Amino acid sequence: MARISFAEMQTSIAAAFVNEGMKHDDAQLCARIHTESSCDGVNSHGVNRVARFVDYVAKGWVNLKGRPELVRQVGAIEVYDGQRAPGILNALFATDRAMQVAGEQGVGIVALRNTTHWMRGGTYGWRAADRGYVAISWTNTESCMPAWGAKDTRLGNNPFVIAAPRKKGNVVLDMAMSQFSYGKLQATRLKGKNMPFPAGFDKHGTLTNEPGPVEESMRILPMGYWKGSGFAIMLDLLAAVLSEGSPTNAIDKIQQGSCTGCSQVFILIDPRKLGGETFTDQVADSVIDYLHGSAIAENSTEVLYPGESALRNRNEQFAKGIAVDDGVWKEVLALAERKK
Amino acid sequence: MARISFAEMQTSIAAAFVNEGMKHDDAQLCARIHTESSCDGVNSHGVNRVARFVDYVAKGWVNLKGRPELVRQVGAIEVYDGQRAPGILNALFATDRAMQVAGEQGVGIVALRNTTHWMRGGTYGWRAADRGYVAISWTNTESCMPAWGAKDTRLGNNPFVIAAPRKKGNVVLDMAMSQFSYGKLQATRLKGKNMPFPAGFDKHGTLTNEPGPVEESMRILPMGYWKGSGFAIMLDLLAAVLSEGSPTNAIDKIQQGSCTGCSQVFILIDPRKLGGETFTDQVADSVIDYLHGSAIAENSTEVLYPGESALRNRNEQFAKGIAVDDGVWKEVLALAERKK
Repeated sequence: MARISFAEMQTSIAAAFVNEGMKHDDAQLCARIHTESSCDGVNSHGVNRVARFVDYVAKGWVNLKGRPELVRQVGAIEVYDGQRAPGILNALFATDRAMQVAGEQGVGIVALRNTTHWMRGGTYGWRAADRGYVAISWTNTESCMPAWGAKDTRLGNNPFVIAAPRKKGNVVLDMAMSQFSYGKLQATRLKGKNMPFPAGFDKHGTLTNEPGPVEESMRILPMGYWKGSGFAIMLDLLAAVLSEGSPTNAIDKIQQGSCTGCSQVFILIDPRKLGGETFTDQVADSVIDYLHGSAIAENSTEVLYPGESALRNRNEQFAKGIAVDDGVWKEVLALAERKK
Repeated sequence: MARISFAEMQTSIAAAFVNEGMKHDDAQLCARIHTESSCDGVNSHGVNRVARFVDYVAKGWVNLKGRPELVRQVGAIEVYDGQRAPGILNALFATDRAMQVAGEQGVGIVALRNTTHWMRGGTYGWRAADRGYVAISWTNTESCMPAWGAKDTRLGNNPFVIAAPRKKGNVVLDMAMSQFSYGKLQATRLKGKNMPFPAGFDKHGTLTNEPGPVEESMRILPMGYWKGSGFAIMLDLLAAVLSEGSPTNAIDKIQQGSCTGCSQVFILIDPRKLGGETFTDQVADSVIDYLHGSAIAENSTEVLYPGESALRNRNEQFAKGIAVDDGVWKEVLALAERKK
């Protein structure tokens, strides 16, 4: 495990992207987001995804020249076609545009279709909360999980984000609809361990904590069983309806890697136009203080609010360097140093 | 178990409400909603709640003369003080008003503070979808669940609703943030059975499928463990911020039964102003058809979309009469027939 400084990581990732044909400014922006995700402890959608993104560009699955194109505007709602541009650039645009509309009208909604992987959903929640906005955002994905009662994968894990601003630390929830990701299963298997709770069904339909049999069956468990399954269905349906885009069943036909052609929704609200900044902060503090005052359970040491551990990771890794797998970092450096 | 016709149930519940001082029209409307919930199979927030609602009115915890009062209007967002009026009347008003704004502007958001128990959250999702709208709604509640890592109850189960219209049957998700409700635990315990999955922690902190020890410890499990806990925190925070109302920690101080003083959000979108009715229906059908085509798991017989079983119950019970516990029905009749 290497420790790489924020600046060095961003520079190397940006070079990797420029080498694949990305414009300097776009590459810097995408590299910063990948680095921020890693700094927050989410390597899976940060530094670990650099090589795959480059591969998708090389295959023509991500359109470096694409820019969101306005399809429709109705009141505070705008629908864009993302033209399969880099998912980070599209989602940043959507968040910023929805904030702009919300800043004027109280609420702004951008629905984005035909985009590509937005990497870490939390990016857009943090961005909104950092600027004083409340955000509700989600994406659909290709299928990777069986619906409740099914054994073949016809449901996306459809990451969902809610964020609220708070001076002492934004409150940001970023969760996929599966209980665990395949990445987490793999990492746990490689350590020779089991998941702390059931992770899915093996190929015989038995619920199991063992990662290997679930990776094999592809029958990962929706969070909360039927609840996460139902929620994932709704998120897919709404994303496609609001963006006039593709639901999971249509994304499954595209088959150009993860999330290509997906649909996203960004609902931004400006609480400064409602109760105001001080009120919002007081409410957020009262909610967090109440939870922090909980009696701690036997097998726990603390109660965390959504976003609290990301913020800790950020502060620690910004100071000490960002932990990254040696092999992953070598791969990034190779992409950064090659000449095409 | 009695079978009561829809009309008879509504008439008797309305009489019970009129006897407690409710105006004729308000009583008819509330009685219809309680009856619809029961007809859909949700007695817990339908006929089984009549006596408790009457009791809350008698105690002065529900204000029969209250009407939502506009506090603030910003673009497509309106904030109302519910004046602790009957939660059903307030939530119907909020849904209808948000639909009206959405019908004009594409999106309408009503945030409602200082209201009372809305009974079944799905009511408002079905209402919106029946009229062609997409809805995202939620309420906070008094605390009833420990946050992840905690052992005392400082988190509400904060029911969350998403709905979309579909001609062959609306798609409506109505879920609380706990994996199981206390009502479900009690009913299962009375049958001498265990829950199909872990329901919470016993007083020693051990995860268990047995309902009794969880009812005793009050340590019900958030759906998806830390995920449902985080989601519940966000729903509470946003409900209070947007409605300029009370978060769970403030509701806990009111101590006037379930949900008195709570905060709710109703986000309504009109898809007819976006891709249109036919497009919306096609997307919804494609999502549902894909799921219905799943390979069925070993221990399952079918894959249901959110709202599918409610619709089945509705059709069956509207024809055969609504199943209701004998004791509960006797209690409703007593309230309907008494003279105050």
